[in-house]
Amino acid sequence: MKTLVLVGHPEIENSTTQQFLKAAAQPLSDVKWTAISEPIEVETQQALLKQADRIIFEFPLYWYSAPAILKLWEDRVLTNHFVVEEKALVQKEFGLVVNFSQKESAFVAGGGEEFTLSEILRPYQALAHKAQMKYLPIFSIPQFAYLTDEKRQRLLVDYQVYLSAPAKPSFDQKTDWLLNRLEASDFPANSQLVFDEIKNRQAELEDLKFQVSEIKAGELDE
Amino acid sequence: MKTLVLVGHPEIENSTTQQFLKAAAQPLSDVKWTAISEPIEVETQQALLKQADRIIFEFPLYWYSAPAILKLWEDRVLTNHFVVEEKALVQKEFGLVVNFSQKESAFVAGGGEEFTLSEILRPYQALAHKAQMKYLPIFSIPQFAYLTDEKRQRLLVDYQVYLSAPAKPSFDQKTDWLLNRLEASDFPANSQLVFDEIKNRQAELEDLKFQVSEIKAGELDE
Repeated sequence: MKTLVLVGHPEIENSTTQQFLKAAAQPLSDVKWTAISEPIEVETQQALLKQADRIIFEFPLYWYSAPAILKLWEDRVLTNHFVVEEKALVQKEFGLVVNFSQKESAFVAGGGEEFTLSEILRPYQALAHKAQMKYLPIFSIPQFAYLTDEKRQRLLVDYQVYLSAPAKPSFDQKTDWLLNRLEASDFPANSQLVFDEIKNRQAELEDLKFQVSEIKAGELDE
Repeated sequence: MKTLVLVGHPEIENSTTQQFLKAAAQPLSDVKWTAISEPIEVETQQALLKQADRIIFEFPLYWYSAPAILKLWEDRVLTNHFVVEEKALVQKEFGLVVNFSQKESAFVAGGGEEFTLSEILRPYQALAHKAQMKYLPIFSIPQFAYLTDEKRQRLLVDYQVYLSAPAKPSFDQKTDWLLNRLEASDFPANSQLVFDEIKNRQAELEDLKFQVSEIKAGELDE
């Protein structure tokens, strides 16, 4: 599965969040991580979109949507012909990676921002609907600057899963994917701990599943 | 009351809708109708905003939000300092004039666009909330190209009301405002018909109100 990440940020080089995510995406061979910049070459961009199975818009939330550069990309590249007549994006997956300075809890009715992220990002969901793409759950990154090293490590893994694991994975699919990646050792060396932790948890999970199936079998015998 | 209209359109000169609206706004002395263009001068724009009592974003719907030029204006002019710290927009009214090629009826769950305009334009409502502005009902213009002359005439009046009449006007306020404007004769000559129609309806309304009050008075006597 091929993933295309389109990053909309006016100063990517100065964004610690985007530099972190760029580094996190780098080991993933099926992920193309690109920063949108002018001039926008419509045909090149459309060709990239066609090759992708999963398309990700990645951006900081500026006034409740993407920075202008990403909107410019949409206005130019997503022609009516390409999206509606040619149906070039049908059945592709479409995800959003959005970072912001507020706490996640601000995005509720009565909270500091009054509306949920799902509501605020509705224009992208409407685009997915129009293009007949499968809209993925939003990947939100609140207050990146305050994350501890441990939380950054978890973010890195979750982000990699979002870019390249099956959409809406089950716990099993997620752990399988992670174990494969870890064993392929395209992860940083210090992730041995994560590796062990996951293996332990998976063993535990399989134990529990066995117990549940035993109980059920018992019930059927009665 | 002063109104500032900020138009976001990449080719205003070629837009019949925007040229129509520009002409409709022209006779209104308290309305400043401006097309956003680069370079965006932040201090000039902030000064214009401060002078306004009502701020209008006017744009065609491109992928469920404003064209990139208006987003660029937002990203540059609406600094956190200006909006949140200085609270420069508090208590101002904030409206949207949005035109699109779809039928209005497409914007419902199960319709062609799946979401309502109120949902799709949530990012602007979130901005109004953050800036403590009063969010006005959206002024939508579906399928301008197909409007008959009569409907265009009605649109012209409704648009003028949206720009310069009291917000959420009662029927009385709306007719008073219209009669004043018409008597000041800053309307096109062919609007005599509209004028007569409104006068007739107002007389009718006053009749009905009188009858209702008589009935109520009778009830109290019993």
